[in-house]
Amino acid sequence: MPMQNNHQMLEKLQTPCLLLDESRLRANIARMKERIAGLGVAFRPHLKTAKSLDVAHIAMASPKGPAMVSTLREAEYFADGGVRDMIYGVGIAPAKLARISAIRARGVDLAIILDSAEQTEAVAAHIRATGDPIPVLIEVDADGHRSGIAPSDAATLLGIGRRLTDGGATLRGVLLHAGDSYSLNDPSALAAAAENERASAVMAAENLRSAGLPCPVVSVGSTPTARFARDLTGVTEVRAGVFMFGDLFQAGVGSVAMEDIALTVLATVIGHQRAKRWIIVDAGWMALSRDRSTAKQAVDQGYGVVCDPSGRPYPDLIVADANQEHGILAIRGGSSATLPNLPVGSRVRILPNHACATGAQHDRYHILDGGGSVSAVWPRINGW
Amino acid sequence: MPMQNNHQMLEKLQTPCLLLDESRLRANIARMKERIAGLGVAFRPHLKTAKSLDVAHIAMASPKGPAMVSTLREAEYFADGGVRDMIYGVGIAPAKLARISAIRARGVDLAIILDSAEQTEAVAAHIRATGDPIPVLIEVDADGHRSGIAPSDAATLLGIGRRLTDGGATLRGVLLHAGDSYSLNDPSALAAAAENERASAVMAAENLRSAGLPCPVVSVGSTPTARFARDLTGVTEVRAGVFMFGDLFQAGVGSVAMEDIALTVLATVIGHQRAKRWIIVDAGWMALSRDRSTAKQAVDQGYGVVCDPSGRPYPDLIVADANQEHGILAIRGGSSATLPNLPVGSRVRILPNHACATGAQHDRYHILDGGGSVSAVWPRINGW
Repeated sequence: MPMQNNHQMLEKLQTPCLLLDESRLRANIARMKERIAGLGVAFRPHLKTAKSLDVAHIAMASPKGPAMVSTLREAEYFADGGVRDMIYGVGIAPAKLARISAIRARGVDLAIILDSAEQTEAVAAHIRATGDPIPVLIEVDADGHRSGIAPSDAATLLGIGRRLTDGGATLRGVLLHAGDSYSLNDPSALAAAAENERASAVMAAENLRSAGLPCPVVSVGSTPTARFARDLTGVTEVRAGVFMFGDLFQAGVGSVAMEDIALTVLATVIGHQRAKRWIIVDAGWMALSRDRSTAKQAVDQGYGVVCDPSGRPYPDLIVADANQEHGILAIRGGSSATLPNLPVGSRVRILPNHACATGAQHDRYHILDGGGSVSAVWPRINGW
Repeated sequence: MPMQNNHQMLEKLQTPCLLLDESRLRANIARMKERIAGLGVAFRPHLKTAKSLDVAHIAMASPKGPAMVSTLREAEYFADGGVRDMIYGVGIAPAKLARISAIRARGVDLAIILDSAEQTEAVAAHIRATGDPIPVLIEVDADGHRSGIAPSDAATLLGIGRRLTDGGATLRGVLLHAGDSYSLNDPSALAAAAENERASAVMAAENLRSAGLPCPVVSVGSTPTARFARDLTGVTEVRAGVFMFGDLFQAGVGSVAMEDIALTVLATVIGHQRAKRWIIVDAGWMALSRDRSTAKQAVDQGYGVVCDPSGRPYPDLIVADANQEHGILAIRGGSSATLPNLPVGSRVRILPNHACATGAQHDRYHILDGGGSVSAVWPRINGW
């Protein structure tokens, strides 16, 4: 009776808390690794979603990496855990260089990214002062999403590349993130975004190489483009992170399937407003995050989709609204579905809009094994 | 030259991080305490925003309380710190009663709230098993916001009240939260919401008392109604929390002034997209939270209002968009303000939309003294 065991185990947990389905996690990672290997490039998992050494060990090619991080706190934590090959994926601030070199002094190949002459001068000054030949990837803009130099802007690319090399930095290559792919939901448009990301990367790399500058690494990535890329000629590595857990937003994009989402928030029913057809649970936006990214998609999932303790969604039951520690469950507008009978004390599981945001509200994962029992607790970190 | 000292001190901090202006904090708290005392009732500060013993010691009438908490983790943390009078302000789940009694066994007068016969039976069963006469406040619904029994529903109130008393619980009184006041922004409407909250509380209390049941505590509260209440006859205590820090959402409601907001996120400029008039900083939604509550107000503040290191807002400069670790600063749409000159490495301070949500993304406050120097670091907790 695995279902009964599942319920009994889940009922022992204090709510709200995070559940992570280990078999879904492993399947999501295996599928992505196979896909990226099939395209003939290396895989550098982004650890910003999981922030967990246990998850990193499943996702990375080896216990030493490679990996991508979004904060120096992550870099320090994963360095403590033995990871030796990381890129810090946020444009470097000059005041962070001392901390970068301190991590590197522990034997970690930690690379940084930048996209301006000002950052380049700060790196050169730091190298003059310390002698640490920090590896640098130049951030290139694939789609106008955020940061980066236009791949066609050879003058800026070469100016930065030469100044880095002259200043003693290790010019490691170029790095792009096709962030605008998040706004798409059509497979052919997603494949086109992936091809644009690839072509932009190759153009930037060729601009450096044709001027005699090194560009050993051509790094691209986002969960949607990693999922839909058909050809990665000229690329050396792909990065992706949120695919490991999946979430409702990525399901709306089409880059993960709803039934592959590995992360849920366990909550307890604490009340009803029967005249309004509301069920109140003890998971509010503090446990789910304030993320409402599905509001812009074809299907607005509120603050999340409500499932039974085994992980099956109730028809059209969503977290319609949330306060700090209260979630209001209701049937989606326009649906004729029936509100399930969930007495006070019932447990539900909530699929999150955005796994990166929901995960960050918690400090640990309760790991569900194949039978739905909690087999372990994996810590995770937050902060900077 | 206090301004120069300020800059020098802030430049030593790793970003992003939370800054808390101690003089604004103390002034906000002193003003609220004076207001509530002037209305002749007790003040029970809600600690869900700050989650800090240092802040609690400024806000509470004594080191022992009283105080309000939103999680049992808070109750345990503040009990560790010597607080002895708390209400856990989320409708009780049966599986949490053992933890409640464990905290109470340490000498803490920890009360719970509930609004259903099911919860009442669970409490009665728990008392039968443990002998712990848990104090209970019946949650009453002032405005249809979320949970609670209608104040006019005497039958339900009395049924629960009698069952609690018969079951050995300590019937402590009634508790309301006028959460719909958050959607208002007119002082007379806010005063009316406060009067409705008061009148609903008194009606519920009278329903209990007229049937011979005890109701020593009549507890109301929200930052907007605490700010605008004119008369609290019949009420014994007021609760409020977010007013201590203030935020852009409460400024939009009119319950705090923009210049009284005590909490900011310190960030560093890491890049520019000059053609788009964007400045990129290292505080994204992870540091600011995903809260976009001002989007529904008259003035949409994006992910926050950008200030210089001394705390003065730049004209019409907001965090127009945010990714996990990137904020995009831009001039508000429709404004003719000029983008300030903020080279890479510049520090800015960002006023948050929602102090409860932004605070929760961090594990400490960097305390700014009157001269703008960082005088201390105060830890805060998160989780359940």
